[in-house]
Amino acid sequence: MFDPVEKLKEFIRHPSVSADPAFKESMKGAQTFVAELLTSIGFAVEVVKTDLHPIILATRGTNPAWPHVIIYGHYDVQPADPLNLWKSAAFEPEIRGNRLYGRGAADNKGPLMTHISAVARLLERRPDLPLRITFMIEGEEEMGSPSFAKFLETHSDRLKQADFVYLSDTGIPTPEQIVITCGLRGLVLCDVVVTGPRSDLHSGLHGGVLRNPIQAVAELCASLHSPDGRVAIEGFYDDVMPVEEWEREQIRKLGTDPEKYREFLGIPAFHTPPGFTPFEATRVLPTLEFNGIGGGYQGEGTKTVIPSKAFVKISCRLVANQKPDKIRDLLYAAIRERMPKDVTFEIIGQHEGTPYVVVPPDRSNTPKDQSPVLARAFRAADAAIAEVFGKAPLYLREGGSVPIIADIKRVTGLDSVMMGLFLPEDNLHAPNESFNLDVMKKGMIASEKILEAVARG
Amino acid sequence: MFDPVEKLKEFIRHPSVSADPAFKESMKGAQTFVAELLTSIGFAVEVVKTDLHPIILATRGTNPAWPHVIIYGHYDVQPADPLNLWKSAAFEPEIRGNRLYGRGAADNKGPLMTHISAVARLLERRPDLPLRITFMIEGEEEMGSPSFAKFLETHSDRLKQADFVYLSDTGIPTPEQIVITCGLRGLVLCDVVVTGPRSDLHSGLHGGVLRNPIQAVAELCASLHSPDGRVAIEGFYDDVMPVEEWEREQIRKLGTDPEKYREFLGIPAFHTPPGFTPFEATRVLPTLEFNGIGGGYQGEGTKTVIPSKAFVKISCRLVANQKPDKIRDLLYAAIRERMPKDVTFEIIGQHEGTPYVVVPPDRSNTPKDQSPVLARAFRAADAAIAEVFGKAPLYLREGGSVPIIADIKRVTGLDSVMMGLFLPEDNLHAPNESFNLDVMKKGMIASEKILEAVARG
Repeated sequence: MFDPVEKLKEFIRHPSVSADPAFKESMKGAQTFVAELLTSIGFAVEVVKTDLHPIILATRGTNPAWPHVIIYGHYDVQPADPLNLWKSAAFEPEIRGNRLYGRGAADNKGPLMTHISAVARLLERRPDLPLRITFMIEGEEEMGSPSFAKFLETHSDRLKQADFVYLSDTGIPTPEQIVITCGLRGLVLCDVVVTGPRSDLHSGLHGGVLRNPIQAVAELCASLHSPDGRVAIEGFYDDVMPVEEWEREQIRKLGTDPEKYREFLGIPAFHTPPGFTPFEATRVLPTLEFNGIGGGYQGEGTKTVIPSKAFVKISCRLVANQKPDKIRDLLYAAIRERMPKDVTFEIIGQHEGTPYVVVPPDRSNTPKDQSPVLARAFRAADAAIAEVFGKAPLYLREGGSVPIIADIKRVTGLDSVMMGLFLPEDNLHAPNESFNLDVMKKGMIASEKILEAVARG
Repeated sequence: MFDPVEKLKEFIRHPSVSADPAFKESMKGAQTFVAELLTSIGFAVEVVKTDLHPIILATRGTNPAWPHVIIYGHYDVQPADPLNLWKSAAFEPEIRGNRLYGRGAADNKGPLMTHISAVARLLERRPDLPLRITFMIEGEEEMGSPSFAKFLETHSDRLKQADFVYLSDTGIPTPEQIVITCGLRGLVLCDVVVTGPRSDLHSGLHGGVLRNPIQAVAELCASLHSPDGRVAIEGFYDDVMPVEEWEREQIRKLGTDPEKYREFLGIPAFHTPPGFTPFEATRVLPTLEFNGIGGGYQGEGTKTVIPSKAFVKISCRLVANQKPDKIRDLLYAAIRERMPKDVTFEIIGQHEGTPYVVVPPDRSNTPKDQSPVLARAFRAADAAIAEVFGKAPLYLREGGSVPIIADIKRVTGLDSVMMGLFLPEDNLHAPNESFNLDVMKKGMIASEKILEAVARG
């Protein structure tokens, strides 16, 4: 069998930045790499064309009586900028200590390679394993999966034959404490572009007669939160569900130290809405964040302009029961109402995603019609994780978003078993992203056990 | 004699961006160009070294009994970005209609070339003209003239022998209406850099527990103005002098149409402090503007980060009697007081300049000790401008800043006669800067007459 770490390094060397057209060739390289790897371990690989980056669909096992798992992953990565903050080159994987550094190491190439390796080992040991496995690996996750909904519609008949989806694209607090993610936040994103004067102006000659678009953007942004950290848009929290007691208990069991978290973030103090710990807030509360702001002179020194334009990039994270449509309408209405009338502006909608919840078996709020194979997968995961990592997993909702999980549920009815594998210090979406190789090794062993247990049923 | 427009084109082809070290060679090129041109018309040229870009000091006439004028100009220009908004290349001068386009065409290469050409023509006609002329041409004006104060101190004995300074680095409302600028706003500039988390964070995993530095910057910026457009810092307006009636009269005589100005700016409405017209506000009121803001993802599409840092570039324009020290202290104190305590920040001081006022002869508030040569220069300018442009000049304070004018006054005691030559539509500091060649032609004729009249005295 192949060496999983060496294969992962090879995978990272393809700079598969899906959002940037300059990386088109290396997107193709990453896609070919995955396709060839899956072919080499006995999968029938199909490359499904989309409007942009293809989806890899690879299957083994055809007996309709066997349980069927779809393993999801993505071969694309976030942009690597700012490049100057990387200690080693973003696309030249480097091992330091027990970590492998490189863009995509943790999101999602490392976790995906963990499952591919587990499957390879399992099939080497048990070539006749009574389990249908479909890898479904997309290349547009970091762009909001624009082609995925259409793919789901056109392939729904095939996908519906599966029992559940299995993936690792969520987080864990420590290398010992695995988390089964049972909820993901949704997303509503938009850019707001404000125009003041029709071209950049000399701030001496014209300063004092018009509203600077930077000021208009700043005033808008400053209006969107209350001083206590809550989002200051009426109705924003209306559909947020109260938290179940077993969930609060699971969060408490995390046992994470707020002071250590504060130090990790490197901030003087938290700014968390009242009534919630930081660990609760990221999981059960919606947010409104600014992902970028810009306008005017960006360089060293000074340039005394009043810029023509300024912009802000806004993202809202949604929790269970919130609807992207409704939050988008509330947000856009707030922007329209609060923007000063002496500037013009445009709201440019970006991608959106519905929040998702799946409740593991034997909890008070588990749906009565939960599929037996899904329940078996959850129980197998619980047992394998406890055995390999030495601790039972926690069942937690997570702050991040994998919008396609909710889409899969909507189109195919399938729920997802999400085994978290990346750590806070893995620096996802940031410079010096890395993946813990001990977690990878144990993850492979656990994943092999889980898949074998699902098959056995 | 040389062709003034061809020489100006040659001058513009040197991309003399003083603030950017990448343009070091072309700064040298522009400096050599000016030195050689002045040598060719009979000046003794001295290149005075500074810590950065040299100052050209060129003299003709040595008889101490002759009147002595110092003609000021600068050979450096603003950065040309954003380059994609230029219709023709910024450093490839192009004539369209009666305008010459290129970075520096109006600020300050065109006006400077106007005076060099006037002097060349005058001396060709009257080689024995009883007038001492010193060109003093710096290369750091667009950076805030960091070397100029030291130069003034070391050369003050020589410079004090002159009678007045003469320059064109200010504006006019229409090609027919020349303005003698009798006041300039001062400047206080700083950058504020805010740090939230120690590195960029995934906005899903960590969103909702900390204050985003973009939010902190936005809240600061939004706090610095009242809704009526005034600067919301206590004490900011304390030292602003009431406007003299003859000044209001001169501003009224401008006869400019607010509606046309609004259309020129391309804004839905003015945002001018109450009690002042837009034309008054830029001349007699101080301002606080945002020249740049940045933080987080700046590219197309989305990147869901909470950035580690965000910044804003702030500039205050000061009017007569305001002190940069005091305004700087008020501004910094406001920033320190208003910045949320859950982020860290740094204030980086940039250049500063004192506001300046000179009152032309025969006005109610002209100082009694005004020098006779200065008074003669003002009267000569009044007559020559009325003759060549067909209208008497207006005497106005201006919104822009030429901080060295106040420095020259402080160190040498010399006042300045500032003949405005650039138009609002010249796009100073902005893409598609240009200079009106009709204004240049008439400016040359007027300047020749003014200098001849000063000599005749």
